Amino acid sequence: MTDEVVRARLVFAYDGTEFSGWASQPGLRTVQETLEAALSRVTREDGVRTTCAGRTDAGVHARGQVAHADLQVVSWLRLPGRSDRTPAASLLSRLNGVLPADVRVLAVDEAPAGFDARFSAVERRYAYRINDNPAAVDPLTRRHVVTHDRPLDEDALNAASGMLLGLRDFAAFCKGREGATTIRTLTEFSWRRVPGGLVEATVRADAFCHSMVRSLVGAVLAVGDGRRDAHWLAEVAAGEQRSQAVTVAPAQGLTLEAVSYPPDAELAARAVLTRARRRL
Amino acid sequence: MTDEVVRARLVFAYDGTEFSGWASQPGLRTVQETLEAALSRVTREDGVRTTCAGRTDAGVHARGQVAHADLQVVSWLRLPGRSDRTPAASLLSRLNGVLPADVRVLAVDEAPAGFDARFSAVERRYAYRINDNPAAVDPLTRRHVVTHDRPLDEDALNAASGMLLGLRDFAAFCKGREGATTIRTLTEFSWRRVPGGLVEATVRADAFCHSMVRSLVGAVLAVGDGRRDAHWLAEVAAGEQRSQAVTVAPAQGLTLEAVSYPPDAELAARAVLTRARRRL
Repeated sequence: MTDEVVRARLVFAYDGTEFSGWASQPGLRTVQETLEAALSRVTREDGVRTTCAGRTDAGVHARGQVAHADLQVVSWLRLPGRSDRTPAASLLSRLNGVLPADVRVLAVDEAPAGFDARFSAVERRYAYRINDNPAAVDPLTRRHVVTHDRPLDEDALNAASGMLLGLRDFAAFCKGREGATTIRTLTEFSWRRVPGGLVEATVRADAFCHSMVRSLVGAVLAVGDGRRDAHWLAEVAAGEQRSQAVTVAPAQGLTLEAVSYPPDAELAARAVLTRARRRL
Repeated sequence: MTDEVVRARLVFAYDGTEFSGWASQPGLRTVQETLEAALSRVTREDGVRTTCAGRTDAGVHARGQVAHADLQVVSWLRLPGRSDRTPAASLLSRLNGVLPADVRVLAVDEAPAGFDARFSAVERRYAYRINDNPAAVDPLTRRHVVTHDRPLDEDALNAASGMLLGLRDFAAFCKGREGATTIRTLTEFSWRRVPGGLVEATVRADAFCHSMVRSLVGAVLAVGDGRRDAHWLAEVAAGEQRSQAVTVAPAQGLTLEAVSYPPDAELAARAVLTRARRRL
């Protein structure tokens, strides 16, 4: 035995409908527990642990989630068996062989030095998908598209979400956590009507606090369907605590689409910086 | 009581994953049984029966399925209750209130004279959706997209499917049924790569015999991924019985997208014509 480890980087996707979110919880089916069980099974290493970039809530989906897992060098090296594949290629193929159909691993590699799936990330991008025509619900997309019962105006949505961009305290949109900052940089919050008639929001930030995307979406929807105005949104956004006036949008409409990292040489420095900032 | 009936026309969509197809079968969950039970419940009329335009197999989906149901005039007239809605608007809203989430009714109206959902139809349009990159399976669309383990060439697919167009005997692609013709007019069979990287087939014909779309797709896929050539396809297509060389493509990739009808004045004549042709 050796204590040396290889850090594997995994990009994966899941349909969150039948998961109680990412984070392991006793007695519940979670993505983390499912992925870790699969990793332990294919590496024959007990208790493999993962850290992910965006800890999604129950019902939230992912198309480009990223995690890392530290594996014993011996586990890593025996992955290919007798094949001529790399350990990473073996891990990818074997994981998809044992994972349930609602989780798919898209890529595996050996992480570059200093990589931390959570703390090295510089940006998370989410999509929120809405059908605003209750007479045209598509059963084929019902698991990841929310139906809104009032028609939405894209210009009003974009004007409202534009007000929230930039570096600011998002306390009004965050479930508070003792000692954690709610200051984030919201770099994109835009809406467009996509082919098929759905309305889709793209939301990008360095990071999000708990329930932040769904609170932002819920607040802007109230303006986009005419129930509230810009003045109301400005007052809500200025609040120092989570606003009771905002309806958190349903989980099923939300998908973590992608996570961005800096060039390899900056991964470690970025992780140090992020850890320090979160303690502000 | 009166024997007078109102023929309701319904346009509806379903996720076929958890249905044993359209047609009622004892002890199985089918779309027909589910829709008829919902119709009986909201009209308070026992034993409502439906006829649909395209009797889909187990696992096949629909976005624009059409059916008719004959309701007693008394059932129809009492649908609005005390509201100011029309009977059709009431039926639409009440059906969606009692149907499970995997079936949604999109439109209801009183059918024009001579309308028969099955026999008046002049065209059925299906889509078949394929992901040909096994490394990029999307869990969010896995219920209606099939993964093909070899890369597909759109030009090869289009060249192959173009060979099958027109009025011809599709016996090689049909599950035979005693006394039923297998002559159909295939008006479109085209392929395109859509945003997101999927390959999508559009298949249109006056009507399809049993398993015909999936057999056509399976045959053309063998050419599109390079396993077979045009000569092979021509030989298969010329066969007078269902070919054992063709792999029927999986049900989950298939969706009935739309059904077309002639102008109202021609509905009854079209139904007579269709019934006569099918007995050829």
